[in-house]
Amino acid sequence: MSELNRPICASTPPMGWNSWDCYGASVREEEVRGNAEYMARYLKSYGWEYVVVDIQWYEPGAYSSQYRPFVPLEMDAYSRLIPAKNRFPSSAGGKGFKPLADYVHGLGLKFGIHIMRGIPRQAVHAAAPILGTSATARDIAHPNSICPWNTDMYGVDPEKEGSQAYYDSLFRLYSEWGVDFVKVDDIAASRLYGYHAAEVELIRRAIDGCDREIVLSLSPGPADLEVAQHLSRHANMWRMTDDYWDHWHLLYGMFERCEKWAAFAEPGHWPDCDMLPLGHLGIRSVDGGGDRYTRFTRDEQITMMTLWVICRSPLMFGGELRDNDEWTLSLLTNEEVLHLHRYGTGGRIVFREGDVTVWTARDEEGQAYLAMFNLGEGPLVSRLELALAEAGESFPTAMDLWSRCEMEVHEGAVVVSLPPHGSILLKLA
Amino acid sequence: MSELNRPICASTPPMGWNSWDCYGASVREEEVRGNAEYMARYLKSYGWEYVVVDIQWYEPGAYSSQYRPFVPLEMDAYSRLIPAKNRFPSSAGGKGFKPLADYVHGLGLKFGIHIMRGIPRQAVHAAAPILGTSATARDIAHPNSICPWNTDMYGVDPEKEGSQAYYDSLFRLYSEWGVDFVKVDDIAASRLYGYHAAEVELIRRAIDGCDREIVLSLSPGPADLEVAQHLSRHANMWRMTDDYWDHWHLLYGMFERCEKWAAFAEPGHWPDCDMLPLGHLGIRSVDGGGDRYTRFTRDEQITMMTLWVICRSPLMFGGELRDNDEWTLSLLTNEEVLHLHRYGTGGRIVFREGDVTVWTARDEEGQAYLAMFNLGEGPLVSRLELALAEAGESFPTAMDLWSRCEMEVHEGAVVVSLPPHGSILLKLA
Amino acid sequence: MSELNRPICASTPPMGWNSWDCYGASVREEEVRGNAEYMARYLKSYGWEYVVVDIQWYEPGAYSSQYRPFVPLEMDAYSRLIPAKNRFPSSAGGKGFKPLADYVHGLGLKFGIHIMRGIPRQAVHAAAPILGTSATARDIAHPNSICPWNTDMYGVDPEKEGSQAYYDSLFRLYSEWGVDFVKVDDIAASRLYGYHAAEVELIRRAIDGCDREIVLSLSPGPADLEVAQHLSRHANMWRMTDDYWDHWHLLYGMFERCEKWAAFAEPGHWPDCDMLPLGHLGIRSVDGGGDRYTRFTRDEQITMMTLWVICRSPLMFGGELRDNDEWTLSLLTNEEVLHLHRYGTGGRIVFREGDVTVWTARDEEGQAYLAMFNLGEGPLVSRLELALAEAGESFPTAMDLWSRCEMEVHEGAVVVSLPPHGSILLKLA
Amino acid sequence: MSELNRPICASTPPMGWNSWDCYGASVREEEVRGNAEYMARYLKSYGWEYVVVDIQWYEPGAYSSQYRPFVPLEMDAYSRLIPAKNRFPSSAGGKGFKPLADYVHGLGLKFGIHIMRGIPRQAVHAAAPILGTSATARDIAHPNSICPWNTDMYGVDPEKEGSQAYYDSLFRLYSEWGVDFVKVDDIAASRLYGYHAAEVELIRRAIDGCDREIVLSLSPGPADLEVAQHLSRHANMWRMTDDYWDHWHLLYGMFERCEKWAAFAEPGHWPDCDMLPLGHLGIRSVDGGGDRYTRFTRDEQITMMTLWVICRSPLMFGGELRDNDEWTLSLLTNEEVLHLHRYGTGGRIVFREGDVTVWTARDEEGQAYLAMFNLGEGPLVSRLELALAEAGESFPTAMDLWSRCEMEVHEGAVVVSLPPHGSILLKLA
Repeated sequence: MSELNRPICASTPPMGWNSWDCYGASVREEEVRGNAEYMARYLKSYGWEYVVVDIQWYEPGAYSSQYRPFVPLEMDAYSRLIPAKNRFPSSAGGKGFKPLADYVHGLGLKFGIHIMRGIPRQAVHAAAPILGTSATARDIAHPNSICPWNTDMYGVDPEKEGSQAYYDSLFRLYSEWGVDFVKVDDIAASRLYGYHAAEVELIRRAIDGCDREIVLSLSPGPADLEVAQHLSRHANMWRMTDDYWDHWHLLYGMFERCEKWAAFAEPGHWPDCDMLPLGHLGIRSVDGGGDRYTRFTRDEQITMMTLWVICRSPLMFGGELRDNDEWTLSLLTNEEVLHLHRYGTGGRIVFREGDVTVWTARDEEGQAYLAMFNLGEGPLVSRLELALAEAGESFPTAMDLWSRCEMEVHEGAVVVSLPPHGSILLKLA
Repeated sequence: MSELNRPICASTPPMGWNSWDCYGASVREEEVRGNAEYMARYLKSYGWEYVVVDIQWYEPGAYSSQYRPFVPLEMDAYSRLIPAKNRFPSSAGGKGFKPLADYVHGLGLKFGIHIMRGIPRQAVHAAAPILGTSATARDIAHPNSICPWNTDMYGVDPEKEGSQAYYDSLFRLYSEWGVDFVKVDDIAASRLYGYHAAEVELIRRAIDGCDREIVLSLSPGPADLEVAQHLSRHANMWRMTDDYWDHWHLLYGMFERCEKWAAFAEPGHWPDCDMLPLGHLGIRSVDGGGDRYTRFTRDEQITMMTLWVICRSPLMFGGELRDNDEWTLSLLTNEEVLHLHRYGTGGRIVFREGDVTVWTARDEEGQAYLAMFNLGEGPLVSRLELALAEAGESFPTAMDLWSRCEMEVHEGAVVVSLPPHGSILLKLA
Repeated sequence: MSELNRPICASTPPMGWNSWDCYGASVREEEVRGNAEYMARYLKSYGWEYVVVDIQWYEPGAYSSQYRPFVPLEMDAYSRLIPAKNRFPSSAGGKGFKPLADYVHGLGLKFGIHIMRGIPRQAVHAAAPILGTSATARDIAHPNSICPWNTDMYGVDPEKEGSQAYYDSLFRLYSEWGVDFVKVDDIAASRLYGYHAAEVELIRRAIDGCDREIVLSLSPGPADLEVAQHLSRHANMWRMTDDYWDHWHLLYGMFERCEKWAAFAEPGHWPDCDMLPLGHLGIRSVDGGGDRYTRFTRDEQITMMTLWVICRSPLMFGGELRDNDEWTLSLLTNEEVLHLHRYGTGGRIVFREGDVTVWTARDEEGQAYLAMFNLGEGPLVSRLELALAEAGESFPTAMDLWSRCEMEVHEGAVVVSLPPHGSILLKLA
Repeated sequence: MSELNRPICASTPPMGWNSWDCYGASVREEEVRGNAEYMARYLKSYGWEYVVVDIQWYEPGAYSSQYRPFVPLEMDAYSRLIPAKNRFPSSAGGKGFKPLADYVHGLGLKFGIHIMRGIPRQAVHAAAPILGTSATARDIAHPNSICPWNTDMYGVDPEKEGSQAYYDSLFRLYSEWGVDFVKVDDIAASRLYGYHAAEVELIRRAIDGCDREIVLSLSPGPADLEVAQHLSRHANMWRMTDDYWDHWHLLYGMFERCEKWAAFAEPGHWPDCDMLPLGHLGIRSVDGGGDRYTRFTRDEQITMMTLWVICRSPLMFGGELRDNDEWTLSLLTNEEVLHLHRYGTGGRIVFREGDVTVWTARDEEGQAYLAMFNLGEGPLVSRLELALAEAGESFPTAMDLWSRCEMEVHEGAVVVSLPPHGSILLKLA
């Protein structure tokens, strides 16, 4: 139980950038560096810090958001996948992600990677060795454990001698590289097998055995509420939702998910609404969306940010940061909004009837916040009683945090006018 | 939204006595008075306050824990059930529960009743009137809404004109009687239809329309985690479990339920582990258990109390209070244990492996508590690291709250020896 | 087991008229007589024989296809529902359906009624007596057994003394009336409880105890394939489908149901496609369809008749017979088509690809039949190999049974041209 | 549709021997030859004809009933598995199973093999070629289609160009070898994905494209009744049950399965109760049972044979034939019993109450049979009315087919005395 003496990792909800929404499985080193540089220059001072390389950085032929099934992957002598040299040139010579991580650290930021649960199928069929054990990949692979949407790995059988050694060897390598954040996929809500609790435990132990603080993020969702405690005891963030994109119906559905999961947000443990599909997206996407600016209207973007913030989801920007316009940047640099995200507490829904819903939260100084959302298709004009934020209390002032305007408070309420899909976030005093 | 200005009802988890575990559907007035008197004398100063008459007080022929299907019930002229005069003599002359509630209030306690969701079937088939509406019982009954285990009522169709009026008339009557607590049954987890959200809303509105503070308790369980937010917004307590009795396997199973629900306990809103089947039980039971003292061993009783307290379940004693022995009374009057129950915060599981589980909580002064449970069939001797209560902190002292002994702390840990099904509750400093 | 010596009841699939599709719950005596007279004159010689009064003939206020919940019903002194005198004048004076049945018999036809599973709720709440037992209606009603769409009855608890006596008394009364056919509803596929096997057995025993041959028809569907054997051992026909109406998507879906159930059709036991919604429908309907001629095109009508015939579903006409036009009448009087219906054997699907499907059957003389259906939205021209009817055999001639034309057979095949939703039924030789 | 002109394959339910129950995945050529020789000498004249090599004949290291995950398999240049030469010496030099099939044919018998659905994983990861297409194994493997209990294959994606070519190449090879029977596994009821209809269709087309008559058997079960028609249109036999062994509870459960599936038995199409675990079993088993004689009592063996026969399941003997004792051999050589199996029709349950059940069937001459089973734990003495076999008929004589005794018929019934788990099979006249 000694790991419990450590300082809390992810004591506030992580903020950063992830390569998936713009580059799918195919991001390249110069793109990662470029986004890191943008973040260091424009976003770091607002709390943004993680730069995360998403799925299949070990696949030399990856060119889009689609996986090529059953192709050979770059792997070291110990069944561990390593960066594809053609895509990550600094990794050549067995250096792995160390040079890239060093560069990101040099910018004052943190570096993250994505991995698939399990061990490479190519290692299993070849009975490749594992560091620190005489068991081979063939010995520890589970005979009935695949990912239904990607063919890279077999799951690891936790009952087998050598399974912990494999995950230990993996995270020791990531520690050596300087990895600060690992997003493990196909683990929180497999479509074939449910939640992979035992592999989560192997990974938790592997991380605890490292000298490095590494944020553990679990995907995909929707995670099952029934295992909320196990997730919370073992991971720093986990997806409450299936893959999220710039469609209103997905944002609409997130309100119900946030409602269910809000009670589980606490320092070190964050239910995750998935990446923010904002700005320039789908640059090498071959699916539906294609290369585009976010399909969300500005009202919807505000609504999304407000929801993510008040329920304290991690904020991982999904677009190509360097192509941000001023509007998009403004969404990421509103200090008071981000203050609530960082120091909020007790975020929860206090009212819902039809398409109108109201959330509240406090910050660390006890300041109250109130957000009102119009999820309907028509405009909404409504009285909003500030006492919703706290029964029995009265609030003389209310500031709209997005427009930076003071609202007129009359008999304990403000009059709010919201466009369809729009919202308002108020700080009360 | 005006109800949101009210003071919080049930700001700490309710404590009291309920007639079901000892008298089933058949409790009589003198028994209620006798238990109230005991409570006033021995328990009131420790925070115990609610005296609750459970199911079918309107059924003159009720004689045990079994319901007699389809029998006539005592009802007023407006489709509202009233106490059976033969069982509750003071209710004669149309006085309802007012005399009994007055008596309980006179003892410095609060008075509660149980009701079934819906409207009496006998009123529906007779098209009996409803106060405050021209609709009759026939008009508002839902044609497909029964309770699968009791034939007294039909559910009310929230879409029908008159449905709110019916529930309003009901709670106005209860207010006049002086009822402080209403346990509504067949509503939180129907075996036929799931959760009855719309009827919960009707009831919430009816209570909010009264001038009286009435605790709303919902049964039976297990409530579905998916509707946790709705429960929390509308009710003061709700059952996380099906009916609970003095069987180890039920207590064992409660650990998993508490783990799932712990995050939802907060002032005004309490996930409920059901009554405490302690002391003299089943006095008029015709089912399995029969007339008996609790089948729980003393170790199991301590374990149950510790779990209920650390996760802040309401405490409703189920036995005949007047037959308590000293041991049983001692479980209900441990001031430091009850202090944690009343002022605890952040109760949650921090460790579970096999049959060993550890919970922690804080009180309002930030004092840390640690409970260790041995759910196994053999004895357990184990080192318990106090830092489990709070990563990074060190605690020089640990007091066993049940035995009132100081434990020896060595290198941040105590050595704990637990019998099968046993537990320890420590206050750290 | 003595009932097994009886002659087979319903040795061919029943044919008749049912009042539901045109009159809902509200048919009146003169309408029943009128349809019976039409049947005697125009259809009897083709094999049509049953005249069936559908649901709620005991409800004086029934006026449409909608049920009035919780209203009083006409009942005799023994908890048995009897015809509403205002709707069935000949039943006055306690004569029940005897006069009407006598009239139908006098026309050379047979008489049927519909009942709901169970015992009237009004009898249960009143503890009304049951003939032949000291148990009352209250004693035998199941406390958790309702119909989710009609409030007339409670289910009967087969474990209770008196339950068999109740059903016996019911069918003895129907025997006295001269009932030849009973359609029992809310029994084959309850939406709340599944299949009511035990009540089916009570009813089977009650019928076997009568001196009268009574066809037992079970509703609603879709019956579960898992209980096919139980249905077949106890009933003469049972619904493979939920309520069927004049919508193409329902007819389309029936092909899959017929495919699954075809193997279970055999003398005395018939999977049932529900009534034929042809001719003048919905005369007192307050639901979707309203008063109308069938919405099926003529091609669809042929397709429906062909499918019902080749898989030998019972044929129960649903429209007001007296308003039949010549076309509709022609569908019911095609002798060769009805010959296949009556004497067919081995009806089964032999081909399905996309929207084209082919069925085959034989008649009692070994004559082969082939039906081809175009379930698509465009026309179809296709070669149809006659050997599909029987591997290895060759058929020199093929007669189109609906158009009465000989088809040209070339190299063992005919060329078929079918409109969208159209079909052809061939007799081979 | 030309395949429909062929003579019916498996016009009677197949009878033979299968290597699984005695040798698991490890049978060797000399064992196959030895059992074939026994069959030719002792069983052929009774109708037994198929000699089937079960799973993993391509796995050189197979030594028991357990599969070795992820090991290399013997494969030809076109992604097709071939017999392991160390286990099947006659296959050396690329001859495959031809020499062994020739030998079996020389004995006047037929030869069968088992295959797993799909294409070898080792071929997929290596992008190995497929005969008759430019697609490789990598191109046609389905990215989400494994067998949950064996790691040899990936499923084939029917949407991919080359998938039909692969299965065609497979069955062309089997035709060249002289294979008469193919049991395809992981296809009728996958625990992960349900029924693999599309792959069944690929295989059906591949067989229809061969010049050879090949019986198609699908495993494992329990097949879903919902797809009965698809199974019947495409396969000759399919498993109604999960793997069946010599345990009474499995035999007991088969009665319900047979009841549900009996209606689907017809020439060419046979619901399958799985192998007969009789005689010497588990010779190289490492699971539960071990090397043993069947655990079934003689009464249970008779009961099993009677049930398989009356519902016309295929009969595939599972034990080492050469170790049969006289009793076991007698079960396989009862001419009248096997006559019913071969020529029976209309086999179905006619009575079930508690542990007593009665089945009936006819043979091709209209002779009636009646089987009574005692599924209870105590002895049964009962009157059995022969009219159960056919309502309305009377039978003066009844011959017990297993004991060869005439029963005394009195008032149309015989008195039967059955031990626990025992049965009687009567031929009536």
